[in-house]
Amino acid sequence: MEYKAPLRDIRFALYEVLGYAEHFASLPRGEAATPETVDAVFDEFARLCEEVLEPIYRSGDEEGCTWDAGEVRTPSGFREAYLHYATSGWAGISSDPVYGGQGLPSSMSRVLGEMMGAANTGFTLYTAGQAGAIETLAAHGTPEQRDLYERQLIAGTWNATMCLTEPHCGSDLGLLRTKAEPQADGSYAISGTKIFITGGEHDLTENIVHIVLARLPDAPPGNKGISLFIVPKYLAGADGELSDRNRVFCGSIEHKMGIKASATCVMNFDGATGYLLGQLNRGLNGMFTFMNTSRVATAVQGVTHAELGFQKSLAYARERLQMRSLTGAKNPEGPADPIIVHPDVRRMLMTQKAFAEGNRMLVYYLARHIDVVEDGQDQAARAASQDRLDFLTPVAKAFATETGFESANLGMQCLGGHGYIREWGLEQNVRDARIAMLYEGTTGIQALDLLSRKVLGSGGKMVADFTQEIEHFCRSATGEPELEPYLIELRELVDEWRAISLRIAEDAEKDLEVVGAVSVQYLMYAGYVSLAYLWARAYSAALLGLAQSPQDADFYRAKQSTAAFYFEHILPRTRTCSEIISAGASSLMSLPEEHFRF
Amino acid sequence: MEYKAPLRDIRFALYEVLGYAEHFASLPRGEAATPETVDAVFDEFARLCEEVLEPIYRSGDEEGCTWDAGEVRTPSGFREAYLHYATSGWAGISSDPVYGGQGLPSSMSRVLGEMMGAANTGFTLYTAGQAGAIETLAAHGTPEQRDLYERQLIAGTWNATMCLTEPHCGSDLGLLRTKAEPQADGSYAISGTKIFITGGEHDLTENIVHIVLARLPDAPPGNKGISLFIVPKYLAGADGELSDRNRVFCGSIEHKMGIKASATCVMNFDGATGYLLGQLNRGLNGMFTFMNTSRVATAVQGVTHAELGFQKSLAYARERLQMRSLTGAKNPEGPADPIIVHPDVRRMLMTQKAFAEGNRMLVYYLARHIDVVEDGQDQAARAASQDRLDFLTPVAKAFATETGFESANLGMQCLGGHGYIREWGLEQNVRDARIAMLYEGTTGIQALDLLSRKVLGSGGKMVADFTQEIEHFCRSATGEPELEPYLIELRELVDEWRAISLRIAEDAEKDLEVVGAVSVQYLMYAGYVSLAYLWARAYSAALLGLAQSPQDADFYRAKQSTAAFYFEHILPRTRTCSEIISAGASSLMSLPEEHFRF
Repeated sequence: MEYKAPLRDIRFALYEVLGYAEHFASLPRGEAATPETVDAVFDEFARLCEEVLEPIYRSGDEEGCTWDAGEVRTPSGFREAYLHYATSGWAGISSDPVYGGQGLPSSMSRVLGEMMGAANTGFTLYTAGQAGAIETLAAHGTPEQRDLYERQLIAGTWNATMCLTEPHCGSDLGLLRTKAEPQADGSYAISGTKIFITGGEHDLTENIVHIVLARLPDAPPGNKGISLFIVPKYLAGADGELSDRNRVFCGSIEHKMGIKASATCVMNFDGATGYLLGQLNRGLNGMFTFMNTSRVATAVQGVTHAELGFQKSLAYARERLQMRSLTGAKNPEGPADPIIVHPDVRRMLMTQKAFAEGNRMLVYYLARHIDVVEDGQDQAARAASQDRLDFLTPVAKAFATETGFESANLGMQCLGGHGYIREWGLEQNVRDARIAMLYEGTTGIQALDLLSRKVLGSGGKMVADFTQEIEHFCRSATGEPELEPYLIELRELVDEWRAISLRIAEDAEKDLEVVGAVSVQYLMYAGYVSLAYLWARAYSAALLGLAQSPQDADFYRAKQSTAAFYFEHILPRTRTCSEIISAGASSLMSLPEEHFRF
Repeated sequence: MEYKAPLRDIRFALYEVLGYAEHFASLPRGEAATPETVDAVFDEFARLCEEVLEPIYRSGDEEGCTWDAGEVRTPSGFREAYLHYATSGWAGISSDPVYGGQGLPSSMSRVLGEMMGAANTGFTLYTAGQAGAIETLAAHGTPEQRDLYERQLIAGTWNATMCLTEPHCGSDLGLLRTKAEPQADGSYAISGTKIFITGGEHDLTENIVHIVLARLPDAPPGNKGISLFIVPKYLAGADGELSDRNRVFCGSIEHKMGIKASATCVMNFDGATGYLLGQLNRGLNGMFTFMNTSRVATAVQGVTHAELGFQKSLAYARERLQMRSLTGAKNPEGPADPIIVHPDVRRMLMTQKAFAEGNRMLVYYLARHIDVVEDGQDQAARAASQDRLDFLTPVAKAFATETGFESANLGMQCLGGHGYIREWGLEQNVRDARIAMLYEGTTGIQALDLLSRKVLGSGGKMVADFTQEIEHFCRSATGEPELEPYLIELRELVDEWRAISLRIAEDAEKDLEVVGAVSVQYLMYAGYVSLAYLWARAYSAALLGLAQSPQDADFYRAKQSTAAFYFEHILPRTRTCSEIISAGASSLMSLPEEHFRF
């Protein structure tokens, strides 16, 4: 029951559904991304995941991280695996070649992130802060800062964190208190406590670069007084040579439900030397770029948990013999039938499959738009892609992680009581998956961002634009009788989506609480319809595949079956969402706070 | 954030919604169950839960059980707590006074089980096998067996297990292999391996009585060749004095996702001495009574996990300051508003509350019928109660644990990232809650039992009977304008429920796979409608309460708000269930097993 990278499905989503061949060809960075190179990169990385990272998946969870007097030891094998990862150049696969990166499109990082996350979520998190810091430095760093820090991060010799959260301030960053006092030499003395810092301290690299949100003493209150600082664990000369230990220390690590191989640190900044990154008081703006891509990266985790649960429970369902099929023995020689013959087991497997493959398409769809924003040649196309990203990033983050967690639980459920036992690895997947709905903005925060800032904030334009794209697809795909029922359903949903959005906008004028009351249902609705769109595209791509590559007919027919399952067994969830949305806020807000319990 | 037994709500459900005062008065065993006695029992037990069991809730999880050379050590404090529990006579609260029990109605045990489970799930499991064994002995034991074993179990000096599962046989008990060889002295030599044995070995009591399913060498194959045996850890004389150590040993304990304070054991029977309990080859029949009550007990766990998550997340939501209300500051003096002002946080709290209180009513509703079956004076009433129990037990077991797990997750979600950290206790609740959907028959097994054996097996009679009861309530409650909208909805659902049941019966004649394909959706549908019925009764009871006890108006208005929330925000889930049910089996069964992955 080990993880195998689903390379065939990855290629289907990229090339056959989402047109990545033409997409790569249209990008300056895509020049190197020939189909051969891309395949070679994926194959090579799949091997790393399967052979190096997967074998330390469970042991990393069992062993966890240990904290001793401010030092953190990662689980056995993590240091060697990280070295392997870093020295092979994977950290900079889509980074700037000027600083040592490979300069490939960033969408490829998402694909690698998916394989890595499924093989070993805990390990993957040590690469997340690094990626975020590289990106933030690339966007806001001076050439000197980039040459020093970004180069080391790309080389993987140093690691990095993003330090946002404080004990009293999670979603509400305006409350943050960490102080930055200007020093005579132009640096800043950073003081404060940050919590939930992934990889804040560890033994993987010689240095760790913290990107820290803090406030100058005279900064305006709230969001507009936050600046970004680079705070390395060890100060370094321009050549990267380490000198003094900086005054930033790991006070403790959290004891968590899952992702135990990842050190989640309390970081104490005790007058640590920091360097301003970007403009004063504009730190939160600097953060938004990073937050958005880290949200897409978290959406990828939703894919990984669904994929992993699916692979493991499928293997079990093929082996485990229990009871006979309702329609007669399917394994008459054996004492019972394999449980995959039972429709309810199939329901659980198909649900995982539909979410793993569906959310994979959703994430790659977004990754394509990120490529365009970062590297597109056409200004209008870049703006359109940015809009689509702004709109769908909260959807993908929350929807993929919610359904990823659901899938992880279904994977466990397929094993019955055995799923609850650690040795099978399914319960680890559930525990690891659970964090994804919380960090990088909870589902509730994503939903509010979607409905309040994006839908209502754009006056409905973002919904109009995306639903137009869906309608455009429906028109272009018309003519295939097999596809037609799905297109009809999709068109109806598009109409309903617009009507719902409009009605919420009207209701919100009377009572603003409506927005918060229905936001999560709205987001889930948007997610189910977005996935229906992508499953319809997959069905359409499968039709083409059947015509062009009959030797792959089994693969394409399986796609069609999964699309049909999605439309028949998953998409009806929109019925509940739309009915709850119409209920509004009243029964949520009527109960006085002091009467919740007696 | 400690657990407080919700005594006011318990009394509301029992007396004001479900008419327990008259119910107790109608039972022979109920004579002692005067309102004063019942209150005193509940108050006293609530103190035990809050003061003795809750304080070792988290430490029990952290420390877990340890196995050493066949001996199992329970976490610190468990032995003392168990002694406290046993010596106070709680183990036999509803057992036969002839053998030392208190002879109170068994419904009272459910209420105690709820408080105990919420205070400490892990501890509670040590009382579950005991209760199961007492019940099984009471139903099938000879007077001598009862006098020896049942008496010790009621006194709590001995503990007990139920040994069903084997490595290759979980849901499919027909496959079981444990052997029972008749011996010259009339006893049997029991050999085989049992797994997932809750409390199979521990240090709480001087002896452990295993009730074991096994097969005689010449037994017919399958379910009809299974017999029940009493296999004590230590053999004992008729006076209960211990003699030889029996050949039953704990081979190891499982490392699990949760319920870590409960020892889940692999038990090896190596020619152990066993005594036949009940009739030869009729062991599975003997087991069914026990399985049904243990399913109701597991449904109670669904209540406990929802209640505990609700209490803890409510306390957090009242304290945690983060962001401002969308409709203006509610805590203008503070740096931000308490998160309970945010509608989405309220949605999560209200969902937990609606399931905790709703499933509490459902479980007490069943407990009332169990009382009648066990102790009712009217034969026809006993038969009707048995029917209702047969019908609703799988619903309650699966629905209450699924929604209990959902609630536990929402409780955690209210805390954001902090919910993932062990010290808050919310993630323990999620881990502990997860097993309830697996043991005592998975959700899928319950759903198949409901739809195949109960609904189709009774030719629809069980649905007809229960929906008639709902209609009867609707008629009797008509006339209250406030209640009317809910009654209208309930009537529509009743009609739909019957229509759905009929259509499945028709479809199943053409394709039996339909039954398995839609069974879980059908069960959840049944659960949502059953809870709607009980919430409508609660609303009706609250109207009466408002009229009769205006001093409690806040409590009754909160009930009405919660009922309204249930109807508006939860019940629409039936829309999805009914649409998926109409999809049938085809897209589940069309994919050949070998094409699930490429």
